[in-house]
Amino acid sequence: MINADHPCARSIRQVMDIFGGKWSFAIICELHAGPKRFNEIRNDLEISTKSLSDALKNLEANGVVTRTVHSAAPITVEYALTEKGSDFEEVFIKMSEWGMKWLN
Amino acid sequence: MINADHPCARSIRQVMDIFGGKWSFAIICELHAGPKRFNEIRNDLEISTKSLSDALKNLEANGVVTRTVHSAAPITVEYALTEKGSDFEEVFIKMSEWGMKWLN
Repeated sequence: MINADHPCARSIRQVMDIFGGKWSFAIICELHAGPKRFNEIRNDLEISTKSLSDALKNLEANGVVTRTVHSAAPITVEYALTEKGSDFEEVFIKMSEWGMKWLN
Repeated sequence: MINADHPCARSIRQVMDIFGGKWSFAIICELHAGPKRFNEIRNDLEISTKSLSDALKNLEANGVVTRTVHSAAPITVEYALTEKGSDFEEVFIKMSEWGMKWLN
């Protein structure tokens, strides 16, 4: 059993400080399919430019996502998962197993 | 790899529709330690009454938490995880492993 003082409870709070917003998980899930440009993510998730921009800034600041500018015209900005971000896939797999068991 | 159309991405979004708010995970983590009264949770998490009340209503409506009224004076209201809620522990374990690996 997980007890509230258990290190896990503390690290879950730390994790949620990074991924707290609803869009963070959806964005990371998108990027597990590979690097994507801002508008690709925005269209896939049907999310506002501001929400996406804020969420990406937070994920980049926390080392979960990288932002690469491709300067060849037309300039494009590409986002990709870091190793830290890719490693979160384990959580997603468990989350989706739970979802498929309890939500379908 | 998880692709955006992959059933996992859809079920993660379903999961986040239930647990979207930052407090949902913290509350469930608390209840993994066992049933608790409203004020116990509120004090442990240092959360406002309204935020806790809203989050608990959402979790109860989604079958993750039960609410039991003990009518012996003084009346107390106790919250506990359902089987569906307890089963989410697997996700927490992976989340805390990620947190301990990448955040410490």
